[in-house]
Amino acid sequence: MNAVKKAVVLSSGGVDSTTAMAIAKAEGYEIFSLTFDYGQRHKIELEAAKKVANALEAKRHLVLFIDLRVMGGSALTDDIEVPEYQDRNRHQGEIPVTYVPARNTIFLSFATAWAEVLGALDIFIGVNSIDYSGYPDCRPEYIDAFERMANLATKTAVQGKSRLKINAPLISLTKAEIIRKGTELGIDYGLTHSCYNPLSDGRPCDKCDSCIIRKKGFAEAGIPDPIEQRGSYPGHRVYIA
Amino acid sequence: MNAVKKAVVLSSGGVDSTTAMAIAKAEGYEIFSLTFDYGQRHKIELEAAKKVANALEAKRHLVLFIDLRVMGGSALTDDIEVPEYQDRNRHQGEIPVTYVPARNTIFLSFATAWAEVLGALDIFIGVNSIDYSGYPDCRPEYIDAFERMANLATKTAVQGKSRLKINAPLISLTKAEIIRKGTELGIDYGLTHSCYNPLSDGRPCDKCDSCIIRKKGFAEAGIPDPIEQRGSYPGHRVYIA
Repeated sequence: MNAVKKAVVLSSGGVDSTTAMAIAKAEGYEIFSLTFDYGQRHKIELEAAKKVANALEAKRHLVLFIDLRVMGGSALTDDIEVPEYQDRNRHQGEIPVTYVPARNTIFLSFATAWAEVLGALDIFIGVNSIDYSGYPDCRPEYIDAFERMANLATKTAVQGKSRLKINAPLISLTKAEIIRKGTELGIDYGLTHSCYNPLSDGRPCDKCDSCIIRKKGFAEAGIPDPIEQRGSYPGHRVYIA
Repeated sequence: MNAVKKAVVLSSGGVDSTTAMAIAKAEGYEIFSLTFDYGQRHKIELEAAKKVANALEAKRHLVLFIDLRVMGGSALTDDIEVPEYQDRNRHQGEIPVTYVPARNTIFLSFATAWAEVLGALDIFIGVNSIDYSGYPDCRPEYIDAFERMANLATKTAVQGKSRLKINAPLISLTKAEIIRKGTELGIDYGLTHSCYNPLSDGRPCDKCDSCIIRKKGFAEAGIPDPIEQRGSYPGHRVYIA
């Protein structure tokens, strides 16, 4: 009998999903890493996800191509300019143009399908509702509603054999708490990539939401970002909230 | 001001989704037809979906490629043999191997994304829970749960501007009722395709669930199937439930 618990982990190669993967691993799950090639502006993210899956000894690392560009609607996949960081407090309730319509819903749907095929009962997603850039599909009530829907959608659940769980272990953590947690778990954040809009040589732009949130997170955690340590990170400004 | 109501309609080129599209059109919606190329055994379905979108004057017809085959788990995308029709009454609670894991969830997720980009508040899906082949994601409670989740996932909904509705107008109809309804609306079912496992010349196999349910439906509706009328349908057996 194989008693290994399997988990499908959504991975973007960034700080959050890498930390979620390390948490799943620490909890004893066999990791099935799932990454999407969805017409991002750059492929650095895909490279990072692969390195992370290797470093965390994922059983499989699956990259699925999905064409979100045909739908448009986001600075991450379209020709809309990626905006520079703006303080959330000044923009209560606004959702940034980097929002990709229904992205987490699409990602979790594929994760649900793969989980069913693998016989996995757990999906891990690195969303958080604190330093989350204002995306609606990063909130706890959204995750709960997805889990409820998925348990009505799948054969396993309908046959009453088991229940699929959507694990969002970072959902109530700040970026600094996430980074501290991951550092305790031994993550090399030097493998990860966060920037929405990297320079032509692959370095982070140091201006977008994702770069600034990362920088603040490491600063608040009191931990040096290995990307900066290695000299691959150009900026030296540190923002403290 | 453009007061046209837009609807994203999931279309497989089969009887049900075509009828759902005709209902949306009759209700005054501008149609945005969405079809998936998901590694089906055959492309006839995609051709049918295109013909249907043209016939029903869809504003756009979008074919999205998604690779479900990498996940395996279904006779529709794998090398598992497609089974011949078996009476549902003898197989209570069993889910057929033609079930594709989380397929409707994946399809509805993309439809939700497109709806948000288009500013459409309605999605139409041709599922029905009567002659539905036993798939869990064709039941009313599933559709309701998806709608609830989608309204927590999207920018429009979160900003309280509007509410997305998942319309499943066929959900409580038998196949015969669906065919009568579509015939009243003027659908040429000769454009549609149903078979899971067509012969090499494109003719339906006359043996799979989908062929048999179609045949029963036309027989019960007392309407000749134009596919058979045209001589493109090989079988002559008629099954009455």
